[in-house]
Amino acid sequence: MDRTSLIPALRNVATRLRIDSARSTSEAGSGHPTSCCSAADIVAAVFFAEMRFDPQQPHDRDSDRFVLSKGHAAPLLYAAWAEAGAFDRAELLKLRTFDSDLEGHPTPRLPFVDVATGSLGQGICAAIGSALNARRIGSDYRTYCLLGDGESAEGSVWEAADVAAMNRLDSLCGITDVNALGQSRPTMWQHDMEAFARRWRAFGWHAIVVDGHDMEALLAALAEARATKGQPTMILARTIKGKGVSFTEGKDGWHGKAFKKGEELNRAIAELEAQFVPEPAGTDLAADIPKPSMRSPEPPPPQPMPPPAYTLGQEVATREAYGVALAKLGAADSRVVALDADVKNSTFSDKFEKVAPERFYENFIAEQVMVGAAMGLAARGAIPFPSTFACFLSRAADFVRMAAISNVGIKLAGSHAGVSIGEDGPSQMALEDLAMFRAEPNMTVFYPCDAVSTEKLLALMAYHPGPAYMRTSRPKTPVIYGNDESFVVGGLKVLRESDNDVATVIGAGVTVFEALKAYDELKARGVAIRVIDLYSVAPVDGAALSAAGRATNGRMITVEDHYAPGGIGDAVAAAVAAAGLTVERLAIREIPRSGKPEELLDRFGISAKHIVEAVSR
Amino acid sequence: MDRTSLIPALRNVATRLRIDSARSTSEAGSGHPTSCCSAADIVAAVFFAEMRFDPQQPHDRDSDRFVLSKGHAAPLLYAAWAEAGAFDRAELLKLRTFDSDLEGHPTPRLPFVDVATGSLGQGICAAIGSALNARRIGSDYRTYCLLGDGESAEGSVWEAADVAAMNRLDSLCGITDVNALGQSRPTMWQHDMEAFARRWRAFGWHAIVVDGHDMEALLAALAEARATKGQPTMILARTIKGKGVSFTEGKDGWHGKAFKKGEELNRAIAELEAQFVPEPAGTDLAADIPKPSMRSPEPPPPQPMPPPAYTLGQEVATREAYGVALAKLGAADSRVVALDADVKNSTFSDKFEKVAPERFYENFIAEQVMVGAAMGLAARGAIPFPSTFACFLSRAADFVRMAAISNVGIKLAGSHAGVSIGEDGPSQMALEDLAMFRAEPNMTVFYPCDAVSTEKLLALMAYHPGPAYMRTSRPKTPVIYGNDESFVVGGLKVLRESDNDVATVIGAGVTVFEALKAYDELKARGVAIRVIDLYSVAPVDGAALSAAGRATNGRMITVEDHYAPGGIGDAVAAAVAAAGLTVERLAIREIPRSGKPEELLDRFGISAKHIVEAVSR
Repeated sequence: MDRTSLIPALRNVATRLRIDSARSTSEAGSGHPTSCCSAADIVAAVFFAEMRFDPQQPHDRDSDRFVLSKGHAAPLLYAAWAEAGAFDRAELLKLRTFDSDLEGHPTPRLPFVDVATGSLGQGICAAIGSALNARRIGSDYRTYCLLGDGESAEGSVWEAADVAAMNRLDSLCGITDVNALGQSRPTMWQHDMEAFARRWRAFGWHAIVVDGHDMEALLAALAEARATKGQPTMILARTIKGKGVSFTEGKDGWHGKAFKKGEELNRAIAELEAQFVPEPAGTDLAADIPKPSMRSPEPPPPQPMPPPAYTLGQEVATREAYGVALAKLGAADSRVVALDADVKNSTFSDKFEKVAPERFYENFIAEQVMVGAAMGLAARGAIPFPSTFACFLSRAADFVRMAAISNVGIKLAGSHAGVSIGEDGPSQMALEDLAMFRAEPNMTVFYPCDAVSTEKLLALMAYHPGPAYMRTSRPKTPVIYGNDESFVVGGLKVLRESDNDVATVIGAGVTVFEALKAYDELKARGVAIRVIDLYSVAPVDGAALSAAGRATNGRMITVEDHYAPGGIGDAVAAAVAAAGLTVERLAIREIPRSGKPEELLDRFGISAKHIVEAVSR
Repeated sequence: MDRTSLIPALRNVATRLRIDSARSTSEAGSGHPTSCCSAADIVAAVFFAEMRFDPQQPHDRDSDRFVLSKGHAAPLLYAAWAEAGAFDRAELLKLRTFDSDLEGHPTPRLPFVDVATGSLGQGICAAIGSALNARRIGSDYRTYCLLGDGESAEGSVWEAADVAAMNRLDSLCGITDVNALGQSRPTMWQHDMEAFARRWRAFGWHAIVVDGHDMEALLAALAEARATKGQPTMILARTIKGKGVSFTEGKDGWHGKAFKKGEELNRAIAELEAQFVPEPAGTDLAADIPKPSMRSPEPPPPQPMPPPAYTLGQEVATREAYGVALAKLGAADSRVVALDADVKNSTFSDKFEKVAPERFYENFIAEQVMVGAAMGLAARGAIPFPSTFACFLSRAADFVRMAAISNVGIKLAGSHAGVSIGEDGPSQMALEDLAMFRAEPNMTVFYPCDAVSTEKLLALMAYHPGPAYMRTSRPKTPVIYGNDESFVVGGLKVLRESDNDVATVIGAGVTVFEALKAYDELKARGVAIRVIDLYSVAPVDGAALSAAGRATNGRMITVEDHYAPGGIGDAVAAAVAAAGLTVERLAIREIPRSGKPEELLDRFGISAKHIVEAVSR
């Protein structure tokens, strides 16, 4: 097909996308029409002269992908899918209303959105996951990602640049809409196109500078990107913010402003409508969108994962059990992938790498792209396990937030939780991670205390829908569960109980063993306590916790290797409040410091001694 | 002074630093001696032939600064300060023990550490703050920052690169220790020095490639950096990990491993001792360290900030009141600075910019460097207010964590909290920020509901020691406090009370007004409730809350525009648990979506209607 002949029709598509963006935001009374207008020609070219997809089957395994990293241009994205025939154009006027899925920024409530965007610098990371997935499943689908220029200040963009180049992701094509205006002022680089090109080239990308309103140049650049092998391509498109509406073109002060309905909108629409050009009769770009060109092979069916093979009392760190389990799961299910940030020998994800090196993605010390790529992989059917020290997952907190909004099944694991890591000191101790992960309403949070529960919970989180987090520990702990023990989302284990228990002590991870030590000490004094392993921190089993509390005179004590706010104490307290029960919380209450693990547990108030004291008070 | 003549003595310093690093980590039984050995020559050159400082006055206002961004090389830093005479070398053998401040990674418990490092990619951001501060106070001090090569994969490093170049920070000199080995494997770029140089040059830095073990080359590079005007310099030093100890040099598998005491350590020490060279008699590099070359002018004393000037009932968004207050405070106190991430016209920090443009630092869309630079500014005596949408502060969660460990006085502000922002949708709504900030044990958290409390609390947080966070809202809310109302850290306001109150309803920010609406509705039905404005979310006034709970039949209801875990409900519940009181929590419990603000408050369960229902249950 001679794409040049399509240009008049493509220009008309771009004009319609501008009109739709203007109308829908004006109807909503808010939104970013000028950010849509700068990118309208780009989107017209990518959707109607480049991508291979079926508008009726947006989830198709082999379809080209489009990720709108500059999520505030959502109305443009919606207009493009409407133009392609995915839904009725009239729907566009429901933009930003409660009963429409056409939200202010895109979310996967819409079938053609893989991951939620709107927090800048994330879409390009997810696009890497999408491109890695194509390689994983043996598909030739390509991934396109539209970025803003202001967005390029985000460090995550440069993490993505490194990782994409290192992986030679030539199926990935970025397009930066260089409209030179940020929200509050001109961007750092404005229209210095070479400043952009220099950066992308330095990071190993093929960079092409074009006029982003020149349809022929855009088509040529997209073709050049397609022909570029061994490296990803970034098309740097010089554009005008507000393009097509003369009173906004290149003007500061129009960011995030809808045209006022009436005169202002009418003037904008009239100007845009005047830009329609004659096109060859019978042109129907939407009808001519090419379908995916191949069917990638059906993945092999997942095999059952063999049961754990530990012996009671065996000393195994849960972080190591995590690595063992991940390798076993990876061998059984080709959808399972692992992502690392250069700590694979500490998190033991290197055990997975040995089993499935082609599904192990090293990101070096770049946690944002690690989690962002996992989001893209999950959205495309993989079951990704990104892992690092739990404290460094906070580097990707905003990605975790967007993963929750996306409701994608990323399975995060954080090792080296709490003061029990010892001498490395507070910078390496995760003491806020439970607060961070529990905050998200759809996040499953597991915190196993031994190797068997780690392995069982890992399999559970892999197949439970939505995002999940597992917290593992550095010190070795004894196996306390038999290999046939079963675990459930929202479950707990009562490890010690009698009819005479004076208190319920609830621990998780390393503090389970402090609670068991306290049990033994108290038992020697003739005092019985109930001990619970709260391996499922979110959700928690409120009914079982309340029952235990009621059975032990209403005395409930939580003990956790985590700061007090947002941790296990709060989780239990919230769950038992309706039963009229309160909770005493043993937790870390000051910034800790270096020292021996046992010393720190004791000095910061969460050792067996403190449990005994709390029970005895 | 002819620095070349110093070279033998500098080489001997480097050897001593290596020996100290080896000995101290072996004594501790853990640590990173090989990461120290690669950088020992660099540190010897910077400390003993370049920087101007007084080892006895590490906090001096005009001293050159050294930031160890690769914090795991802490033993090297400690050895350098001991070598300079800051403390007794024998202390080094207490490394990583509970009673020593020589922690596994550096923290400001030590007077010569400005900010805690150990989470990679942060020190370089703090160094920018340090360099900006020199400009602020009119000092000629220079800031040196040692990075690891693996660390350069962190996006925050490239945010820093952009911001430093944009600000033409020629007083900033970075040195990257390119030892080619990460924790778990060779780094992405290994010894491809041009890959590094290309990146830094593309980002606008002067880049110099040197052999990091060639003392003469290092001195020349440092001199070149000092002579470079108008842009920051990055010295890219090619080094060998484990340099000086033959059996570790360039070997994988030695990261983070101390030499075993006995034969292994002895062999390392013997090899290192053999590297001492003759030096000119009477050389005493420590004694010859030049003092700071100037005294910067004394800052003008802060003036009293004028009282607020609002009228009761006036409708003002707290985000706007924040901007007004910040501008007033900035006019009164030259230590106050503001940092933005291209949303100044939404957070209203642009009001500060108008008053004090020279103390307003634009970071464009790069939240990590914004917060990291604020850490450096705070460590050097400024009172920095970094602000953006509250949800995007999660991008800098790991920086907030390290700021808490550093206990530096950064004053964060997050606008557009909660579903009350409306149509923009969940990606722009902060619903986890209270959980994130409350988690840190030394963080003060304020959440004002009106303009007067915003202004008063802003002044309070500015001068309260340690890190603090203020949450502001998008919608306009009426002024309910008089301009002379007083507020305290850990305080609250009882807005409605009677002897017949059947429940205590606790809100903050926008939900205060939902609680007041509920009060009116219930009053019309003859039901009285107590209404509390919990403007201080951390710490909370547990005694006053408990008293209110007891006075209202033990019925306490919290209502917050935040997810349930880690928010106001948990804060109140933890504070009143000891009084045997439980709390019913009205909070956001699912991923929200776009819609009108009032519609969202209602649909997601935190409107007046839901409060009335809860009270009536």
